[in-house]
Amino acid sequence: MTTDARPALETPMSHLTDRTADRAAQHGRPLVPSSARWRPLGIDDVRLDGGFWGELQERNATAMLDHTERWIERMGWSGNFDAAVAGTLPGARRGREFSDSEVYKLLEAMSWEVGRTGDADLDRRLRALAHRVAAAQEPDGYLSTMFGRPGQGARWSDLEWGHELYCIGHLIQAGVARARTHGDDELVQVAVRAADHVCAEFGPDGRQGVDGHPEIEVALVELYRLTGERRYLDQARLFVERRGHGVLADIELGRSYFQDDEPVREATTLRGHAVRALYLAAGAADLAVEDGDDALLDAVTGQVRSALARRTYLTGGMGAHHEGESFGLDFELPPDRAYAETCAGIGSVMANHRLLLQSGDARHADAVERTLYNVLAASPSAEGTAFFYTNPLQQRVPGEVPDPEVASPRASSSLRAPWFHVSCCPTNVTRTVASLAAYVASADEAGVQLHQYAPGTVTAAVGEDGGDGAGTVRLRVETAYPHEGRVLVHVEEAPAAWTLTLRVPAWAEGATVDAGDGPQPVAPGYAAVDGPAAGGRVVLDLPVTPRFTVADPRVDAVRGQVAVEAGPLVYALESVDLGEDVALARVDVDRAPERAPGGAVTVRARTVPAPEGDWPYGGPAPEPAAAGAARDVPLVAYHAWGNRGPSTMRVWLPRG
Amino acid sequence: MTTDARPALETPMSHLTDRTADRAAQHGRPLVPSSARWRPLGIDDVRLDGGFWGELQERNATAMLDHTERWIERMGWSGNFDAAVAGTLPGARRGREFSDSEVYKLLEAMSWEVGRTGDADLDRRLRALAHRVAAAQEPDGYLSTMFGRPGQGARWSDLEWGHELYCIGHLIQAGVARARTHGDDELVQVAVRAADHVCAEFGPDGRQGVDGHPEIEVALVELYRLTGERRYLDQARLFVERRGHGVLADIELGRSYFQDDEPVREATTLRGHAVRALYLAAGAADLAVEDGDDALLDAVTGQVRSALARRTYLTGGMGAHHEGESFGLDFELPPDRAYAETCAGIGSVMANHRLLLQSGDARHADAVERTLYNVLAASPSAEGTAFFYTNPLQQRVPGEVPDPEVASPRASSSLRAPWFHVSCCPTNVTRTVASLAAYVASADEAGVQLHQYAPGTVTAAVGEDGGDGAGTVRLRVETAYPHEGRVLVHVEEAPAAWTLTLRVPAWAEGATVDAGDGPQPVAPGYAAVDGPAAGGRVVLDLPVTPRFTVADPRVDAVRGQVAVEAGPLVYALESVDLGEDVALARVDVDRAPERAPGGAVTVRARTVPAPEGDWPYGGPAPEPAAAGAARDVPLVAYHAWGNRGPSTMRVWLPRG
Repeated sequence: MTTDARPALETPMSHLTDRTADRAAQHGRPLVPSSARWRPLGIDDVRLDGGFWGELQERNATAMLDHTERWIERMGWSGNFDAAVAGTLPGARRGREFSDSEVYKLLEAMSWEVGRTGDADLDRRLRALAHRVAAAQEPDGYLSTMFGRPGQGARWSDLEWGHELYCIGHLIQAGVARARTHGDDELVQVAVRAADHVCAEFGPDGRQGVDGHPEIEVALVELYRLTGERRYLDQARLFVERRGHGVLADIELGRSYFQDDEPVREATTLRGHAVRALYLAAGAADLAVEDGDDALLDAVTGQVRSALARRTYLTGGMGAHHEGESFGLDFELPPDRAYAETCAGIGSVMANHRLLLQSGDARHADAVERTLYNVLAASPSAEGTAFFYTNPLQQRVPGEVPDPEVASPRASSSLRAPWFHVSCCPTNVTRTVASLAAYVASADEAGVQLHQYAPGTVTAAVGEDGGDGAGTVRLRVETAYPHEGRVLVHVEEAPAAWTLTLRVPAWAEGATVDAGDGPQPVAPGYAAVDGPAAGGRVVLDLPVTPRFTVADPRVDAVRGQVAVEAGPLVYALESVDLGEDVALARVDVDRAPERAPGGAVTVRARTVPAPEGDWPYGGPAPEPAAAGAARDVPLVAYHAWGNRGPSTMRVWLPRG
Repeated sequence: MTTDARPALETPMSHLTDRTADRAAQHGRPLVPSSARWRPLGIDDVRLDGGFWGELQERNATAMLDHTERWIERMGWSGNFDAAVAGTLPGARRGREFSDSEVYKLLEAMSWEVGRTGDADLDRRLRALAHRVAAAQEPDGYLSTMFGRPGQGARWSDLEWGHELYCIGHLIQAGVARARTHGDDELVQVAVRAADHVCAEFGPDGRQGVDGHPEIEVALVELYRLTGERRYLDQARLFVERRGHGVLADIELGRSYFQDDEPVREATTLRGHAVRALYLAAGAADLAVEDGDDALLDAVTGQVRSALARRTYLTGGMGAHHEGESFGLDFELPPDRAYAETCAGIGSVMANHRLLLQSGDARHADAVERTLYNVLAASPSAEGTAFFYTNPLQQRVPGEVPDPEVASPRASSSLRAPWFHVSCCPTNVTRTVASLAAYVASADEAGVQLHQYAPGTVTAAVGEDGGDGAGTVRLRVETAYPHEGRVLVHVEEAPAAWTLTLRVPAWAEGATVDAGDGPQPVAPGYAAVDGPAAGGRVVLDLPVTPRFTVADPRVDAVRGQVAVEAGPLVYALESVDLGEDVALARVDVDRAPERAPGGAVTVRARTVPAPEGDWPYGGPAPEPAAAGAARDVPLVAYHAWGNRGPSTMRVWLPRG
């Protein structure tokens, strides 16, 4: 579709600056830093066409979005806004204190999806839902179905747990998404009014508080970028700088739970509730960029890199504790108790994408890729109608198949569930998948950078206006990645001179690039080649041969075990494939994992008998001989586990 | 002291039966089953004299009891009862919803201690505190500082979390302890009135509820045993049978949290909140014994044995999850995240002691011993003025030394703390230590059984009245156990024919018993010998040579690691001894651990350099060569760890 096909603006952009009036100038970009080493491209610039991510977008379009919309209605969370208008709150209120945010995240997802596809029916539903939200907004801009009415808590009376600013943050993100994919309309106006109210309440002379759940920070910076209104950025700074000084109450989990234990610019790693920590990191990075605050950006970068080096699961998942849904200590990464919340994965993608654009450091793009394939993609079921909230790396007992018509009261007690009482993840998945194209590529004056490999097209303006290299680069990417390692980059349009920069993942030792002069070895990191003229192509070959992976020995929980990866995909063994409880599997590490002709990855494994006894400790004894002979056992890509009914599962496989 | 030295009864035993009027008939026994394979002995029958347990009792007498009394006063938890009388509740109320129970557990501890020592000053303090409690009791017997007044929740309005019955259960246990060590008095009367009120409220035609935290069950059965009043036993049965049918609300943690997911007689293992599960097991076992309900006893026995075989730490600690302070799945036993709450250890001692007396199965006595040495004894500091609430088997970062004047809001974030906002453990430790002698020995018609080895005396009536073997057995035990394995049992008085039964722990392969005919090998379990006449002795030799221990390979978290034990003691490596972070230690398993001349247990170990990198996973690589040469490194008995300031610590040591 073209920009012209989009619905006309409904309301004048009176409140917004000229920067937003031109929707095309935003390119449907989720993230628009005013300066960056690499300029992000948006969903207008990058179109996915099939392949792993295109298929997921298709599933989002045909199943996941409808599913989340239906459940939000069914749970009464959108109805809360109608009840606010009808004056039947708090009696008629449904859902947890943060349920408003699910409606806003759905609106954000719808915005990206309408922007991506121009789906007129979805646009109509988006407008109708936004109108119900708008009707509940107070005259002064305040908006919450949970606080402020007789019988409810007073506004801002529970910053620790009330999630008021968190919800408004998601409203703002929805408004920004709508503005950038459509232009001003009622949703955008509601978001701006809410943001203005927040600035009035929490400004320099206002309430000296922050929200227990960061989110407003990242939203306010982006609203500043959209509108150019400095007050939003100033407010984001107040929120970031106030935190860490004990401004929130102490709680049993400790103030580290909401990152109020230490100022953002002094902390050295991510800690506490993982989603909170990662949203805060993303917001603080955005703030640092806009203000040229290098010290703050360095602090956030150090925190994220430390967490990647010491507090991240092989899947990219973050959050080792169920208690507090939080980061564990360094190297405390139990596979069976991995919380690795889907939303934390999305938060990690947000934070790492921001740091990538500023630093050009490939480890952040590696983290984005790993997390997209092994956390985000793991959440939705093959049908797109059920979701994982947590993403453990080991399932000790077969999960139960949840009732597809019942929302799970618990996050982590079953296979993928249709919905949760705390249902942050499904809407987070839908908004991220709808805007997934934004993570694929970036541009600068010299050319285009490809960070993620997926079939589709990339279009970017490169070079300085009027300069020699000025012009448009249009690429068509052809690949079966990650199942195959060959990536063909066809150049469909290009200026006279430009540079194509390709990410070589850290695992891709032996990769080659052929820019017309034969395959040249390239080291992990970024490889820059002279961009071919239109009609030319570049061939990247990444070795996606299955491989064994071991962990730093300080990750005690997986000592003596190996994992299998192939390209960016982490693999897992399920009991449906082994035929026995995977606790009993022993893998022959002397035979490398293989890719069978049909594409399945296999390992050579045997099983051992289950020990018996009335006390599980004793003198050293050799493990019993194999009960079965060694045989080839197929693994499943981790993101696809749990799609074939109850099963035990493990990513880390005992050697032996 | 003698019975005569004890204070006279204060009030007539109008409410109690003749069974309790004779205080001597109860022998100061915490547990008085009406039938048992082995009849427990009480604190009158068994006196500890020095040694490991005698020293702990001395620390209890000189430090721990005063400490808990002072903190309970300081926190305002005893003051809540005064406030109730003054009519200043709820405004003046201090502490959590269960704080009344701490006052009751202190009263129970004082009761045992007064019974043990006759300490007149402590008796005076006990009476004074009991009087303050009594003053707050409502005319109908109800007693709570948390519920029932204007501005408070209605009585019984929050059975899930309110802990009303739990608190009354502890009140009853205090009353029973007082009756059995002193006789009827105000505390006993308060407890009886509260119990009567519970029976009236929750009887067959009353509220069909149970408490979210089991405890009332075990208390009511013992009150039945004390008084002979059947209604207490009937009420205990109602509580046990109601549970497991979803009588409590579903909660985010699931009904398994409070064992309301499955009827007690149908469950096959312990699950949910560990203290709740173990108190329930103890109460259900008591109920089954009194009613001759073999099916129920078998069910509880099976649950406990399954938990011992699959859900118990090497230390005897139970509870693998911080979330919900609960049992994990089978073999899910991470050392670093072991919750292993001190109170759960005490619950395990309670449950296993009951099953031991019924079954005569040594594994329950083994569990009692292991848990006493490595959980209960680990909680108090060397000075007896600080306590561990959780008992992890690995400390990844040095804990902080808590302020000795500040109660910790958290259970598990530091070294031993002087007090906790949730301070269930210190009072539980004091009441258990004061009554510790009750776990040492039992008797039956044939003779005496020694279950735990500690210096002191054991006196028991044995044989049928008027039969050949009728008479008194009086033993004096002399031993430096567990540091040395020799146990001398001197017979000071004995009938003509009697049997001495000695427990041989499961780890004690190679043990011998010498009953005068030279050392005879005995297998783990129980060894019975003909009891010598007065003046004779029996020598038990248990091999307490330090040994390596490995875990069932399904305990993935400790794969490739060994622990060191010596006798019943589990050992640990602390960084204060290694001189480096214990994460870097590698133990040479080809050289057995040794006991150095001074008694210290050592292993041969080296340290490896800490890996560096920005991602903790990669291709298999050999571990770097040792940075330091192998050397002998001293270990510390687990119960004594953390007494020398901040340190990293681990029980399970990587091989290599």
